[in-house]
Amino acid sequence: MRLRTFFGITRTARVAVGILLLMGSTGCAPATSQDAAAPIAFAIHGGAGTITRGSMTPETEAAYRAKLEEALRAGYGVLEGGGASLDAVVAAIRIMEESDLFNAGKGAVFTSEGTVELDASIMDGGTRAAGAVAGVTRVRSPIELARLVMERSPHVMMVGAGAEAFGAEQGVEMVENAFFHTERRRRQLERVQQEAGTTGAALDSVRDPLLSPGADRVGTVGAVALDRSGNLAAGTSTGGMTNKQFGRVGDSPIIGAGTYADNATCAVSATGHGEYFIRGVIAHDIAARMAYGGATLAGAADAVIMDDLTARGGTGGVIAVDRDGRVAMPFNTEGMYRAAIDASGTTTIEIYREE
Amino acid sequence: MRLRTFFGITRTARVAVGILLLMGSTGCAPATSQDAAAPIAFAIHGGAGTITRGSMTPETEAAYRAKLEEALRAGYGVLEGGGASLDAVVAAIRIMEESDLFNAGKGAVFTSEGTVELDASIMDGGTRAAGAVAGVTRVRSPIELARLVMERSPHVMMVGAGAEAFGAEQGVEMVENAFFHTERRRRQLERVQQEAGTTGAALDSVRDPLLSPGADRVGTVGAVALDRSGNLAAGTSTGGMTNKQFGRVGDSPIIGAGTYADNATCAVSATGHGEYFIRGVIAHDIAARMAYGGATLAGAADAVIMDDLTARGGTGGVIAVDRDGRVAMPFNTEGMYRAAIDASGTTTIEIYREE
Repeated sequence: MRLRTFFGITRTARVAVGILLLMGSTGCAPATSQDAAAPIAFAIHGGAGTITRGSMTPETEAAYRAKLEEALRAGYGVLEGGGASLDAVVAAIRIMEESDLFNAGKGAVFTSEGTVELDASIMDGGTRAAGAVAGVTRVRSPIELARLVMERSPHVMMVGAGAEAFGAEQGVEMVENAFFHTERRRRQLERVQQEAGTTGAALDSVRDPLLSPGADRVGTVGAVALDRSGNLAAGTSTGGMTNKQFGRVGDSPIIGAGTYADNATCAVSATGHGEYFIRGVIAHDIAARMAYGGATLAGAADAVIMDDLTARGGTGGVIAVDRDGRVAMPFNTEGMYRAAIDASGTTTIEIYREE
Repeated sequence: MRLRTFFGITRTARVAVGILLLMGSTGCAPATSQDAAAPIAFAIHGGAGTITRGSMTPETEAAYRAKLEEALRAGYGVLEGGGASLDAVVAAIRIMEESDLFNAGKGAVFTSEGTVELDASIMDGGTRAAGAVAGVTRVRSPIELARLVMERSPHVMMVGAGAEAFGAEQGVEMVENAFFHTERRRRQLERVQQEAGTTGAALDSVRDPLLSPGADRVGTVGAVALDRSGNLAAGTSTGGMTNKQFGRVGDSPIIGAGTYADNATCAVSATGHGEYFIRGVIAHDIAARMAYGGATLAGAADAVIMDDLTARGGTGGVIAVDRDGRVAMPFNTEGMYRAAIDASGTTTIEIYREE
């Protein structure tokens, strides 16, 4: 079933081959021995949920579109330059982790204890290597740490203080938990706790998508990529759910639920009400419908999100790319921050269901 | 796709209906309105790995067979009495958690720090509800806590101190970490650390399966069940891998990897080198091959373990039961502690590959 190209064996092998090519050439880029006509594709999301035009000022909406475009261009630029899908995924997610617009890294949501706990995962479709971290509180870039777990530890998933101790050994940048805190998220926590405690409490009409009813589940960032070597990769990073009990882990760091990649089928990153995505093993379910049921990417992604997830009462969406560079981005909520450039070069930057 | 019986909606509903039946009858058991001819089946495992006759004394082997039989009879007894598959799974796993023969609860392996960290998960095939805990150090029965997360929290997965705080709120029994420690596991850690640090170090010839080369990955307990109402359930509990870095989480608490259940297909509990099981999303992959590829339980389980996992260099096995009460228990290691009673009433209690 597995598509294996010469460059698809392991990342280490790719790097080694790249270095050899550089050494034997007159300085040409590692991409030269790739097929320049091979398709590339890239997609990102910044969370799905209750995102409506009515909750946005023009300025807020413009800020989201600009940041989505920045992350999209960064990841796609890696691929255009012949870079690896894993590098594209990390480049885009880091930009969104550093932005306070999204529920990942800086600007992540608060737990019920008023702290920030971050989860992330990444998967290499060529080798099916994967890395994940959950419940980290001091690592500036959880997606970077997930990649280090994948590449430099014998493990796939590390949680809490153990994950941070590993990160410190690896020299990742550590910050105080307060680095991630923002005033908007603090207000969001207060609002959610108020709603939880008071039946029918009237909400102030604030035009901020973070402060709308149901917005506590908006968030999570992710990216999926197909590089010129035919390698797929997926990554996801999140602060989880506003007012979550501390220690709660959603789908984002769960390989198969929030993140999955296999060159034989597709790469998927999910966002939504994580508990439903874990129970449905959503990301792997999309790949499995392609592998065993002969579904197309669009057919599989629609069946899983619009039919199965919706029927079970779950909300959210996915971004997905297949080995031919087709992109699918189904979601069953009012909106999903999303952007993509598919193999045909078509660019999409959208927020609402109807654009 | 989903098989839904009157009693299959939710456990709460089943209990409520059972109470109503009891109130309206002259004391007949809740099972009376179930189809007494409906199939039941139950299977357990106590870990797969380097388990050879040469590493066993007759006394050790007899102890393992006796404990497997005790757990098997306990779980099967619940089903025979008309009880729920979830109750059968928990009953059997609790017996194995309390035994120092297995790598779960008391007698679990040590981390590299000399502590015990426990993971567990459970899933209800009727509702696809699920619960999981990881990295808990003071909860006597991790499988009980996983069930509480499923039934009494809005979450699926909780880790570390947050999981324990939730457990304490729920009144689960807490113990000191030392409660789980055993001298055999302490020696195993020393042996593994010695092996890791010393190339070609000669090992003492000790006839103890825990102290054999490669035995650091033996362990994990699990159970799968089909009850008379047609509900499938699966559960898994483990101490993880000897000498693991603290914070490492294996496949056992990952829904889709170590545990999965769906009445439409099957219930699966896995054991082995967890990282490979996470990357392969092993438990869900078996269900997906049945759902989308039309595979039988035996065909799907063999393809995933004997072909795909083996090809990728992973070691371990699964126990699985389908909605007709067929049981599959493939593994690619020298042995797997396992026992089952399938729908035809055939009983199996085995340890080695060739019995």
